[in-house]
Amino acid sequence: MESNDFKLLNKINYPADLRKLKEEQLPQLCKELRDDILKELSVNPGHMASSMGAIELTVALHYVFNTPEDRLVWDVGHQAYGHKILTGRKDRFCTNRKLNGIMPFPSPLESEYDSFVCGHASNSISAALGMALAAKKTGNGKRHVVAIIGDGAMSGGLAFEGLNNVSTTPNDMLIILNDNNMSIDRSVGGLKQALLKLNTNETYNNVRFKLSKWLNAKGYLDEDRRQGILRLNNALKSAISHQQNIFEGLNIRYFGPFDGHNITELVRVLRQLKDMKGPKLLHLHTIKGHGYAPAEKAATIWHAPGKFNINTGERITDDETGVPPKYQTVFGETLLELAKNNPRIIGVTPAMPTGCSMNILMKAMPDRAFDVGIAEGHAVTFSAGMAKEGMLPFCNIYSSFAQRAYDNIIHDVAILKLPVVICLDRAGLVGEDGATHHGAFDIAALRPVPNLTIASPMNEHELRNLMYTAQLDGKGPFVIRYPRGHGVIVEWHNEFEEIEVGTGRKLKDGNSVAVLSVGPIGNNVTKAIEAVEKECGGAQIAHYDMRFIKPLDEKLLAEAASKFKHIITVEDGVRKGGFGSAVLEWLSDNNYTTRVTRLGLPDKFIEQGTVNELQHITGIDNETIAATIKNAIGSIS
Amino acid sequence: MESNDFKLLNKINYPADLRKLKEEQLPQLCKELRDDILKELSVNPGHMASSMGAIELTVALHYVFNTPEDRLVWDVGHQAYGHKILTGRKDRFCTNRKLNGIMPFPSPLESEYDSFVCGHASNSISAALGMALAAKKTGNGKRHVVAIIGDGAMSGGLAFEGLNNVSTTPNDMLIILNDNNMSIDRSVGGLKQALLKLNTNETYNNVRFKLSKWLNAKGYLDEDRRQGILRLNNALKSAISHQQNIFEGLNIRYFGPFDGHNITELVRVLRQLKDMKGPKLLHLHTIKGHGYAPAEKAATIWHAPGKFNINTGERITDDETGVPPKYQTVFGETLLELAKNNPRIIGVTPAMPTGCSMNILMKAMPDRAFDVGIAEGHAVTFSAGMAKEGMLPFCNIYSSFAQRAYDNIIHDVAILKLPVVICLDRAGLVGEDGATHHGAFDIAALRPVPNLTIASPMNEHELRNLMYTAQLDGKGPFVIRYPRGHGVIVEWHNEFEEIEVGTGRKLKDGNSVAVLSVGPIGNNVTKAIEAVEKECGGAQIAHYDMRFIKPLDEKLLAEAASKFKHIITVEDGVRKGGFGSAVLEWLSDNNYTTRVTRLGLPDKFIEQGTVNELQHITGIDNETIAATIKNAIGSIS
Repeated sequence: MESNDFKLLNKINYPADLRKLKEEQLPQLCKELRDDILKELSVNPGHMASSMGAIELTVALHYVFNTPEDRLVWDVGHQAYGHKILTGRKDRFCTNRKLNGIMPFPSPLESEYDSFVCGHASNSISAALGMALAAKKTGNGKRHVVAIIGDGAMSGGLAFEGLNNVSTTPNDMLIILNDNNMSIDRSVGGLKQALLKLNTNETYNNVRFKLSKWLNAKGYLDEDRRQGILRLNNALKSAISHQQNIFEGLNIRYFGPFDGHNITELVRVLRQLKDMKGPKLLHLHTIKGHGYAPAEKAATIWHAPGKFNINTGERITDDETGVPPKYQTVFGETLLELAKNNPRIIGVTPAMPTGCSMNILMKAMPDRAFDVGIAEGHAVTFSAGMAKEGMLPFCNIYSSFAQRAYDNIIHDVAILKLPVVICLDRAGLVGEDGATHHGAFDIAALRPVPNLTIASPMNEHELRNLMYTAQLDGKGPFVIRYPRGHGVIVEWHNEFEEIEVGTGRKLKDGNSVAVLSVGPIGNNVTKAIEAVEKECGGAQIAHYDMRFIKPLDEKLLAEAASKFKHIITVEDGVRKGGFGSAVLEWLSDNNYTTRVTRLGLPDKFIEQGTVNELQHITGIDNETIAATIKNAIGSIS
Repeated sequence: MESNDFKLLNKINYPADLRKLKEEQLPQLCKELRDDILKELSVNPGHMASSMGAIELTVALHYVFNTPEDRLVWDVGHQAYGHKILTGRKDRFCTNRKLNGIMPFPSPLESEYDSFVCGHASNSISAALGMALAAKKTGNGKRHVVAIIGDGAMSGGLAFEGLNNVSTTPNDMLIILNDNNMSIDRSVGGLKQALLKLNTNETYNNVRFKLSKWLNAKGYLDEDRRQGILRLNNALKSAISHQQNIFEGLNIRYFGPFDGHNITELVRVLRQLKDMKGPKLLHLHTIKGHGYAPAEKAATIWHAPGKFNINTGERITDDETGVPPKYQTVFGETLLELAKNNPRIIGVTPAMPTGCSMNILMKAMPDRAFDVGIAEGHAVTFSAGMAKEGMLPFCNIYSSFAQRAYDNIIHDVAILKLPVVICLDRAGLVGEDGATHHGAFDIAALRPVPNLTIASPMNEHELRNLMYTAQLDGKGPFVIRYPRGHGVIVEWHNEFEEIEVGTGRKLKDGNSVAVLSVGPIGNNVTKAIEAVEKECGGAQIAHYDMRFIKPLDEKLLAEAASKFKHIITVEDGVRKGGFGSAVLEWLSDNNYTTRVTRLGLPDKFIEQGTVNELQHITGIDNETIAATIKNAIGSIS
């Protein structure tokens, strides 16, 4: 950061410094900011393409608005790396996404410039509306509140609920629609199509700006007249462009689209909109990955590209020969394999075809898979509708995003026992994406829901067998949770075998304590047991891979409870209400007094870090499991 | 039903019978249907006004469409009493909402004419889209699928997610927007305003209908040309009406508005739309309570009016002198009382101001409360935004509807420890509204979420004190769950007292077993203990009202665990993962081997009935609690 390449950026630590620049210096700053992000991300991987597409917008916002007094509410922090660098975190940006480093997504816990949490999409409008109203009530009526939301996030129902209320609640907020026609994959849905149609209409925009400016200057835009002016504007737009506009349909003044990479125009437009009364939406066209040719060409790949060579654009991937596959690959290939043999299978993903590898099915059998956009609730209810009429949807949602579909799982799937296979990807600790993204709550939240079967595979073969089992007749709603990242079996392509629902596996018998695990964390248990047995000669530790969280394998439980005085449960979900609690409940209901130690995630939000680091911190790593086993053995003998 | 007043209805058991009528007989049938519903509801309370407003629509749908082969997907079953009577349930309609009677909301578990579950709003479009697609895939391509959704439900984010996908997924479904400008209370938001503006435009509708008809006749409306025609239509509408239309903004063909009480016109319009290719939306204006003057005048009151005198329109209410107040009244009055003294307090309700009594605050301090429409997710995130900026929102949501806001509570409130007071009304068994409406899951779902305080009052004084405590500085996110219906204290208006967070109350000491309860179900425990102590001389049973589910009162727990060999926990939520499990976890973590019996809701969906009946069935009534205590005493001695 000390080179001449960053002559402007070197001088900027906070937005106040930025605001000292001349307008004509801003393009240079944007270039430096881009170079800085590229340089850093090439060696320290992160979310790249979104932030590259939002550079001009970021600079313009901090240049025009008085941050942090004015509030910028980012919707999904992918776009916010430029924002971080400009708001006091330039020197720490090399710690981005690392343990004890900068958080992966902006958070008020880290910086006063981060107005709200932004890990899950579509929440910015609702939060910003609350903030705008609160500003008025707390005597900060001159504060500006700006929500910056992507077109992908705009398809989420929460964003619509927000818009619906923005339009009728008195407020002056500005919504910026950062429209790159992408979420992580390409955007889908009617809204996207409508946005594509809203091309720049010079005549209209010119007339409107002049009109607004003139009315403002004349003091005509008081609250009373706003409605009237709005109607006039709408009529004007209709008359000139003959376009239906969903935002104006909701009575929100619409401006745009403008080129989101023209910093001069952006500054001009933002200045014009800044003090305009009433809610308004500014529509910007941006390009994901803008300013870096390789990323512009393949934005999905460059959403989070890993390490890369800046000059050649070559992504630096580890040699994965002999490495077990990602669970995602196994899921994607297996789904295709099953779909070929079972015509009832349909794939459904809310905007994550690449992330969950459903793109494999989509490519091979395009009429058998649906990307419904960022819309987790719809994904589940839509799947339920199909299941009601004889299809067998595999609805794949990241565990933490499935919190958005909790009611849909209960009300639309479970009550009717519909055969929807809910595949929870990214279950457990996800690593660098941090607190908002860990799949920590799914076991505890879903276990109480009647009629659900809930399972978690310990390895790739088990995942394939669970998927195979879930699509057999009569299985009803079936939840399969599995983690982000690599499995443990290189030769993962086994022949399918049906697994009897509610049965676990005794991996190893023992004579001292028993460990009951569920899911891939069982592999840590295996290693821990090996270590302990090596260290403590004679101790034989039993290991049960319970496989099903619901229904529990009562035969195995009875065996473990009768034979062992101490049971250790291990899971990569929250301890409160999780798998270990299910074991406690069963023991209590069946009058066992076996001592139980439950390992799992503690009752606090876990920040970012590598999965290994976080397993250590939360006490589900090999070493902690081993220590727990040794303690248990000690307390018995 | 045998009188001459029902000469047409008497002949109709199923829609096939209805379809034998002549078109000119339909108005008479509508009248009879209305009279029948009125007659029944006057003595057997239920949801009245919505169904009265949908009579013509119901008759027209079953007349024009080939039900049950064609699928009607009702959004919220309030509107569906006419549908029930016409689909084989006429003679059982007197059992509506009763134990083992007709379910409160249509359900495929009850009738093949009920296509989907419809207890929670806004799910019809997503489910119907799934059903329409499945019909094509399963060789039922000629099946018609119709979603019938109210304007209130249309404000839910899920409905928007559905619309966004309807418009770009090839399908021929019909969405009927039953627009009465109401949900239960008056509708709110920009969508409502936009709908109000879409007045009948005769010229436009005439031109469009003739155009569509002509194009259909000419075979021009194949899939390829649909997009082109649609654009033409949109342009036409813009040109004629100069209106922005949110549905056409989403590329869904819009027809309307039409008079939803003109059965002749409805039949004509439905016939025209029935075989039209592509998705389309029919906008009907209806009046909630139509055909019954008292209900038309006060639709909110007549949403579910209780018993009434048909002739006078007088509602028959029990004399409530000397009866304890409803928890809802206590909530509403207390919120106002607190708001007067604490300027940071803001009320937020998603469309339930009357149901939860926030209308008391709204009336007295209109700028201090927001009805955000059916939008539970937004309600919470909007509250979080306000809390972030110094306000103290009381966000009141029915427990089962709060399942819609699960992620918002985790991601937008809990991570930042924002001081939002989440008041879960209708927690526990709600009685006649049945499986979709019981507040069964909130304890288990929220207990694992870090940073939340979760409490439940045993009576009105406790509710007031918890509300008072929650609004004091530094309390963070605070969940208060309380049930539907009457409390237990006539003189409920106590002076506020702060309750130390995480402390329960020892109501009664004992020498045999201890009962730990949380919430109003503790009153059953009190009675059960009285009965047992009367019966078994000498037995002294301890009773702890734990009050907080999180954090638990560890001092009381330690006392109970040390002193008693057997602990019984009682709650009106699910046993799996609930309060009782929290007690098990604490005992296990602290190495107690105290025997525990947990009473709570079993692992299945509970149907409708009175609360007393359902408590008995689920084993949390006085008698079962007493029997459990006696068993416990027996097993000790």
